[in-house]
Amino acid sequence: MIDLENLPKTKFRGKNITLAHGAGGKAMRDLIDEIFVAGFDSPELTLLEDQARFDLSNLNKLGNRLAMTTDCYVVDPLFFPGGDIGKLAVTGTVNDLAVGGATPLYLTCGMIIEEGFPIDDLQRIVASMKSTADSAGVRIVTGDTKVVPRGAADKLFINTAGVGVIPETSNIQANRAQAGDVVVINGYVGDHGAAIVDARGELALEISTVTDCQPLNDLITEMLKVCPDIHCMRDATRGGLATVLNEFASSSEVAIQLDNTKIPVREEVRGVCEILGLDPLYLANEGKLIAIVSKEDSESLLAAMQKHPIGKDSCIIGAVEESPQGKVILETGFGGNRIIDMLIGEQLPRIC
Amino acid sequence: MIDLENLPKTKFRGKNITLAHGAGGKAMRDLIDEIFVAGFDSPELTLLEDQARFDLSNLNKLGNRLAMTTDCYVVDPLFFPGGDIGKLAVTGTVNDLAVGGATPLYLTCGMIIEEGFPIDDLQRIVASMKSTADSAGVRIVTGDTKVVPRGAADKLFINTAGVGVIPETSNIQANRAQAGDVVVINGYVGDHGAAIVDARGELALEISTVTDCQPLNDLITEMLKVCPDIHCMRDATRGGLATVLNEFASSSEVAIQLDNTKIPVREEVRGVCEILGLDPLYLANEGKLIAIVSKEDSESLLAAMQKHPIGKDSCIIGAVEESPQGKVILETGFGGNRIIDMLIGEQLPRIC
Repeated sequence: MIDLENLPKTKFRGKNITLAHGAGGKAMRDLIDEIFVAGFDSPELTLLEDQARFDLSNLNKLGNRLAMTTDCYVVDPLFFPGGDIGKLAVTGTVNDLAVGGATPLYLTCGMIIEEGFPIDDLQRIVASMKSTADSAGVRIVTGDTKVVPRGAADKLFINTAGVGVIPETSNIQANRAQAGDVVVINGYVGDHGAAIVDARGELALEISTVTDCQPLNDLITEMLKVCPDIHCMRDATRGGLATVLNEFASSSEVAIQLDNTKIPVREEVRGVCEILGLDPLYLANEGKLIAIVSKEDSESLLAAMQKHPIGKDSCIIGAVEESPQGKVILETGFGGNRIIDMLIGEQLPRIC
Repeated sequence: MIDLENLPKTKFRGKNITLAHGAGGKAMRDLIDEIFVAGFDSPELTLLEDQARFDLSNLNKLGNRLAMTTDCYVVDPLFFPGGDIGKLAVTGTVNDLAVGGATPLYLTCGMIIEEGFPIDDLQRIVASMKSTADSAGVRIVTGDTKVVPRGAADKLFINTAGVGVIPETSNIQANRAQAGDVVVINGYVGDHGAAIVDARGELALEISTVTDCQPLNDLITEMLKVCPDIHCMRDATRGGLATVLNEFASSSEVAIQLDNTKIPVREEVRGVCEILGLDPLYLANEGKLIAIVSKEDSESLLAAMQKHPIGKDSCIIGAVEESPQGKVILETGFGGNRIIDMLIGEQLPRIC
């Protein structure tokens, strides 16, 4: 958790959110100025307009298509091993832009805060958002704050929406997987899900797994340099690896064959799953991308990924086949096969 | 409230949201397909990508700057006289774009839903968003759904973010008011606030006031035709007319003198305010814009506004003066003056 001593001291230190902080008047203005504008430190925010503005000419230089995405974050608890809701809220939206081939640029930030929430925690979360935005090279340019009475929301929810620009050379789509392609991942699956389970402390587990929550855009830039024609790419968040692969198989009308022995899962994460009856293939990740590329491209792509700090454990975990269309099949390692369906029901609520 | 009989019958009729609807798997996919994709009916949503994409060349035709904004909506109750949270969520973001001179284009939609929420109500709200988006000429192009356990949120919160394009001719900013300018409004203030108070039913009022919730972009298009050089413009939502004028006075370092006899307030709204000790100048609106323009432009502007269905009650309510800088002053009508400060404290929680 970010140390409060390293953050600028405001008049809100030690205080709590009241309904007045969401009422549109002076108290809200003060909170916005001291916590959000100062914390996010973006030129657009200091103008105090209700909208941020950018020259289209600068966007045109980066590509020919605007990409737009949004996510709400309701993770519980707000602080967990390796991250917090702020880091998650920036990372998730940056990644949703980046996996489509877009250069992420600008983020909005909407906060729904429960009356009584500690402003110190809010300042920590804003600092975490700012630091994550900096590391991803994006700016938080406009926002909104709502306060609801005690009991009407659980502590804090964040929404971020983001825009980015896609270069002309890129054409990443869920329906472009074809027989002969291979499936690549940039590392271990399930770390985020396991870290949240651990943070909830309900199971008295003592594990050292931290969330994999990390912006993927820098890795993706390196990937696109050596392999501009990535066919499909998505980050495996809620619903995990299994869900993303099912989406690809279904959209592309192909089969995806996975090799269970190749899918990287930490022993600890496997242990958590065994205790709780979970499947690591469905566990949430916040820094894992799944890419489908031609076999010819895969070798140079993998080499480039493995050179990157967040891609060093990258590997090929499966291949695309013609049939059975729309199915994801796991080779269990004993010559057996098992169909990996979309997640049915609920694994863990409020995972992100 | 939108009649369910007029909406497509889905397999969810009469059912309630469960945690599985937010888990990222098959249940969520079904809900998204049948309620959101079918309800919003946008080509971008049917692609089922995590991001929407648009040709920048189409945006370049509309102007030279991209505008971006966001708002969270936590209004209580969800349905109220003349509107609902869905209408509000589209209108609010459309208006935040339009008052800056932007042509609103694309909206994102993030929903945080409490477990147990009736899916029929969700379908009604989505239909209301779609109908409002259609009337404003915008599309809802991407979204996100989170479900939280019972008690972790009060029924439903919505976030929308929006992008639009600002034409080269427009330069609307809160710091451009100057002495000699006049202050224009497009009608009665406080209707939204009064309608919400009435809808809560706590005061056993029997009034017929409905929310003024309405997209302003069509009216603003007509305004910009006759008066391209609008100096300042903002919609008076949370914090009301008083807050917007204080923001203009402060950003532009001018005084704003209001004539109390000219500010349109319905008798009923005035009555609600008297009973509750509220001031209509601070009451929320969801379809009222305040524009500051030169005196020379004001006559033709007013004529154009009065011709528009949502501008027929437009009038001049005040003037900009040099000093006292940063102050908003109300002539009370008996030769007296009163300083109208920013809203201190809280008027009505969860008004929008």
